[in-house]
Amino acid sequence: MANSTSKSGRISIIGASGYGGLQLVKLINEHPIFEISSLYGERSAGKSWNKLNPFLKISKDKEIVKSNIDEIAMTSDYAILSLPNGLSSQLTPLLLEKGIKVVDLSADYRFKSLDKWKEVYTKEANKYPRFDYELCEEATYGFSEEFYNDIKNSRLIACPGCYPTSSVSVLIPFLKQGLIDSEGIIIDAKSGTSGGGRNPKEELLLSECSESIKPYGVIGHRHTAEIESIASHFAGHDVYLQFTPHLVPMVRGILSTVYARLRDPGLTAEDCKIVIEAFYKNQPFIDILPVGTYPATKWVKNTNKVMISVEVDKRNGRIVLMSVIDNLLKGQAGQAIQNLNIIHGLDSDIGLPKITYYP
Amino acid sequence: MANSTSKSGRISIIGASGYGGLQLVKLINEHPIFEISSLYGERSAGKSWNKLNPFLKISKDKEIVKSNIDEIAMTSDYAILSLPNGLSSQLTPLLLEKGIKVVDLSADYRFKSLDKWKEVYTKEANKYPRFDYELCEEATYGFSEEFYNDIKNSRLIACPGCYPTSSVSVLIPFLKQGLIDSEGIIIDAKSGTSGGGRNPKEELLLSECSESIKPYGVIGHRHTAEIESIASHFAGHDVYLQFTPHLVPMVRGILSTVYARLRDPGLTAEDCKIVIEAFYKNQPFIDILPVGTYPATKWVKNTNKVMISVEVDKRNGRIVLMSVIDNLLKGQAGQAIQNLNIIHGLDSDIGLPKITYYP
Amino acid sequence: MANSTSKSGRISIIGASGYGGLQLVKLINEHPIFEISSLYGERSAGKSWNKLNPFLKISKDKEIVKSNIDEIAMTSDYAILSLPNGLSSQLTPLLLEKGIKVVDLSADYRFKSLDKWKEVYTKEANKYPRFDYELCEEATYGFSEEFYNDIKNSRLIACPGCYPTSSVSVLIPFLKQGLIDSEGIIIDAKSGTSGGGRNPKEELLLSECSESIKPYGVIGHRHTAEIESIASHFAGHDVYLQFTPHLVPMVRGILSTVYARLRDPGLTAEDCKIVIEAFYKNQPFIDILPVGTYPATKWVKNTNKVMISVEVDKRNGRIVLMSVIDNLLKGQAGQAIQNLNIIHGLDSDIGLPKITYYP
Amino acid sequence: MANSTSKSGRISIIGASGYGGLQLVKLINEHPIFEISSLYGERSAGKSWNKLNPFLKISKDKEIVKSNIDEIAMTSDYAILSLPNGLSSQLTPLLLEKGIKVVDLSADYRFKSLDKWKEVYTKEANKYPRFDYELCEEATYGFSEEFYNDIKNSRLIACPGCYPTSSVSVLIPFLKQGLIDSEGIIIDAKSGTSGGGRNPKEELLLSECSESIKPYGVIGHRHTAEIESIASHFAGHDVYLQFTPHLVPMVRGILSTVYARLRDPGLTAEDCKIVIEAFYKNQPFIDILPVGTYPATKWVKNTNKVMISVEVDKRNGRIVLMSVIDNLLKGQAGQAIQNLNIIHGLDSDIGLPKITYYP
Repeated sequence: MANSTSKSGRISIIGASGYGGLQLVKLINEHPIFEISSLYGERSAGKSWNKLNPFLKISKDKEIVKSNIDEIAMTSDYAILSLPNGLSSQLTPLLLEKGIKVVDLSADYRFKSLDKWKEVYTKEANKYPRFDYELCEEATYGFSEEFYNDIKNSRLIACPGCYPTSSVSVLIPFLKQGLIDSEGIIIDAKSGTSGGGRNPKEELLLSECSESIKPYGVIGHRHTAEIESIASHFAGHDVYLQFTPHLVPMVRGILSTVYARLRDPGLTAEDCKIVIEAFYKNQPFIDILPVGTYPATKWVKNTNKVMISVEVDKRNGRIVLMSVIDNLLKGQAGQAIQNLNIIHGLDSDIGLPKITYYP
Repeated sequence: MANSTSKSGRISIIGASGYGGLQLVKLINEHPIFEISSLYGERSAGKSWNKLNPFLKISKDKEIVKSNIDEIAMTSDYAILSLPNGLSSQLTPLLLEKGIKVVDLSADYRFKSLDKWKEVYTKEANKYPRFDYELCEEATYGFSEEFYNDIKNSRLIACPGCYPTSSVSVLIPFLKQGLIDSEGIIIDAKSGTSGGGRNPKEELLLSECSESIKPYGVIGHRHTAEIESIASHFAGHDVYLQFTPHLVPMVRGILSTVYARLRDPGLTAEDCKIVIEAFYKNQPFIDILPVGTYPATKWVKNTNKVMISVEVDKRNGRIVLMSVIDNLLKGQAGQAIQNLNIIHGLDSDIGLPKITYYP
Repeated sequence: MANSTSKSGRISIIGASGYGGLQLVKLINEHPIFEISSLYGERSAGKSWNKLNPFLKISKDKEIVKSNIDEIAMTSDYAILSLPNGLSSQLTPLLLEKGIKVVDLSADYRFKSLDKWKEVYTKEANKYPRFDYELCEEATYGFSEEFYNDIKNSRLIACPGCYPTSSVSVLIPFLKQGLIDSEGIIIDAKSGTSGGGRNPKEELLLSECSESIKPYGVIGHRHTAEIESIASHFAGHDVYLQFTPHLVPMVRGILSTVYARLRDPGLTAEDCKIVIEAFYKNQPFIDILPVGTYPATKWVKNTNKVMISVEVDKRNGRIVLMSVIDNLLKGQAGQAIQNLNIIHGLDSDIGLPKITYYP
Repeated sequence: MANSTSKSGRISIIGASGYGGLQLVKLINEHPIFEISSLYGERSAGKSWNKLNPFLKISKDKEIVKSNIDEIAMTSDYAILSLPNGLSSQLTPLLLEKGIKVVDLSADYRFKSLDKWKEVYTKEANKYPRFDYELCEEATYGFSEEFYNDIKNSRLIACPGCYPTSSVSVLIPFLKQGLIDSEGIIIDAKSGTSGGGRNPKEELLLSECSESIKPYGVIGHRHTAEIESIASHFAGHDVYLQFTPHLVPMVRGILSTVYARLRDPGLTAEDCKIVIEAFYKNQPFIDILPVGTYPATKWVKNTNKVMISVEVDKRNGRIVLMSVIDNLLKGQAGQAIQNLNIIHGLDSDIGLPKITYYP
């Protein structure tokens, strides 16, 4: 049985003090099988985790240390990298060589083609010279529900971006089965501010973004390429779509409102709901809502869930798909643990929250 | 000269204690030409305005009274109705008969066809029997920038809904000139909670909507019909579109992100910007932002402005139009005063705020 | 050993759809020992819990039913009452008679003297005639850390109010040991809006309370009497103090800033910290922060913790005590479960969250 | 008549892009008498104001320039300094020498004694060597309501801090008339995040401070010294008090809840209200609320008002004073303009907002 294993899983977290790192520390600290073997960070190296983070004390306090490949290799089975784009690719090959399995939260291994990555992440490509073409091809895209078997046997997981996780979760069932036009898809996405990270920036100050909503990265946002890449994979041909992210005055959560055209305009919202339900049957983290019930990001806050709703405009056969996630959990650290559960032979939902504290 | 007039404008506000009413009281209280002749309200009748509203004291305090047509006729040149849908239609004909010009904030006269109204506002149509077909035809749709000449000579203005004001402001220039496909238009709109009014409802509690974003009224929202009606008017043929409103955890503001397809895919964002600029030349409340600068609702908070930005995806000729307004001002009470300025022969921007207090 | 028991604890929740009820449902649903036996509610009687609450699905769905004493007696070991003040006292005696142990979240049994209750809760006293003097004397005040032994053997627990829980947690160590003047104590408390409940009220709308802070219930708030009653108990004489609550634009959390005068002005902040640490030694839910680290309500959100900090002004021997809780958990439903754990012979922290998801 | 003057007032704003600067730009741009002569800033020097700030376009666009004393002298009658503490003192003497009157928003001239300033602002004193003892003595503390006559004839105004403005406004009437004990005063103050400025800091990110309230600067906050200095001035003897600021998840606003003991415990809340009303008679920016009506910061947002309420606990003769301001207007830039109005011989309320846009 999958969850009968009790072989320990020792995990190094590299980049522990960002928002992704904080989630990892909490999740692993409370995980029944995994344990934190070490915490790596540049800024806070030499300090006690529990003193630095009185709101997130771990059961066995650790000193934060500078990353050291040999040490990680000696103490850990897995490493989760929560590092800036580009920097991950400098550590990953070294860790893999030592036999450490890597779950990477950056964008560095999300594209099968390193050249595509260099095209999309130009600035990072200039800063970090990369030649790891094979690794890019080898890496598994960690959308847990779709790539379960690949993840199980992978030593390098590229965790999806937060927006892609939310968007493709509703597109895949329809693209894979050819139920919607792959042309003309529009993703209007809304994210809380934690998606912008913990490094202080003027536009993320409460004074600036409270009581306001605004679009950003219109047309050219980097996640467009990632979403298109996955959408194309499932459609079986190149897909180009519109993706517009918006900054919402809240901490956590992403809502994607996705517009497309049904190939068969006779399908009803109920039909489409059944399509998604069948597709995600028995998936512990995917909830399909009744037609007419629309998801609020609050409903999945602090959980690893995706909540999905679908509507169809009978007048013109257009479909509206709605999907909410917690950007820091299912959109980042939660999905990382979900993937590690799979790799480690556990049920994918071990140690992951499913119900929010409402309100 | 337009603004040389000093003939007083005495205005009755009917329904003063809702959010629309509060804006009207403030705007008229500080207006150089207009004055509040009387304040009508059911709930608070008999009470002093200034005692009830210590945060919005008017220079000459008034007792709130129950609406009385004869009294309004004696004391007022204009009446602004800030009443529930359906109820407006019961008072408006009586006021017009007495020679009072009416600016109505409800949806009652927004459709040229009363039958259309009855179809969209079914519940209200059942509650309030209406036969004022001619008035519906006569009424002027108060989108000030487009219907200036009609407004000037009208005795009954139907002020646009908040979502329609924001959405059609960016669509009109392109629909009127046939620059975009009228098929496949998608409006993804985001509103603050004040759009839901001041009557307490569970879903508008801070506890419920803070730290969350959610869609509502998907497919069937009533403003869809209003937007389509105006869009059709300017396109010269029937337009059907997708409109999805979302509730954002902020008090004021609407952002509409509008997606359409350019007829000439060779147009650039700069070209499109020039189109809008030319269209709205010399309009004091419409600001076109440089390409690449996207509007935040905060930029227009507490003002009567519309801020607009445009982007084009060169890959596929799709256009993304963004427009922000303050839903209670340009989206409601501010536009009402703008229309009254026009009717009264004043410059349209007299007494209306143009710059926000930032942040 | 305390936590070796596995005797099941079947719990009826009476009043499940308010904010307190929602917490109870979640906590018990995920509790390793307890289970929900039935869910009682007036408004939603006859409906499926999971259909009504798609964001809080329980493992075995239940129909919400109208409260029925016989049924509760047959199916439950415990009843938690999350009802309006006054109403609890109408059910409690009947439940106790049937041998059901009661944990009451209302104020009905928080005063040893029923006459005191009638004086403070005048309106409720007029609506619900009460003569249960003995029950008031018998009931145990459920501040878990202080009344552990009484709770253990009690059949009726009066769970403390949210403000009292936060305030007295920092006062008790000093009052009991006579370290501060009992005269001149000032409690300046700040609460999120969920403390005002789920029933829609104008002043709790996001539009009203967002971007604002205000005092309310100045001088006469009902929790003053409850705080004074507990403070007097520990001081050994009557204590009168100032308590001023404030409404903060956030959902969950209470911060109490408490001012008092040290009897021995030579005590330092470090000394006082040691006093509290010694007092709350081994308490799993009480965290004393290092001097100079001040607690944010966010640090305890969605947990059952109390985080405490202390400062002393050397110039004048004044002490400033700061305490944060989650008003719906330690301040309400969490403490109820903590008390049930104790009654049931479990470790007091079974099934209760200790670490927040930050941010 | 005071406001009959039409002599222009040309004002240089030095430090225009912080939150204080933004308010100044808006207020002066819309002021009927004053005009912006130049805008100085280091970071944005060389850029167009209107391009940088599309949400705050001024009628005659200006290039932001590096500060240049000679140029300021040639173009301006007044300079408002919105600079970091310490830096102001480097420019002020040079400006005064050229005959420019200076309104300083920093703390540099708020203490009559430069030595006191050096003691409180140690870090700044180390960075900026100062010997301008006479200027410190000469400078006028710009609490407009109390120092009107001094302000009128002053060439150097030290604008009060935001917390002091809010706190001392309610203390002065009682301290000056000896109605409260000067011992044991407690000020529990709550501020929005804009008080922390526009420079990005982790603790001011929306992700960090949203959904949370926390104390900071407990005991040692620098504004304590400023408040004590003013309180001592009006009491006629040294006053030491407790001041605890808190960070509230909102943009603008300060609420001070002030606790003291009445010398005559027989005074009622109504009596105390009359005391304040008489004290602030005819002051256009001070509103005394009816007893039992408590002020929300929202009521004064975007205005230059102070709203005040008072309660008395009859049991013990303790008084609770509540005062709200907009920290960026009455607490900073608004009061600066109020002072300039006075200096320029205008009515003090010219060009300053008195009524908020609610909600």
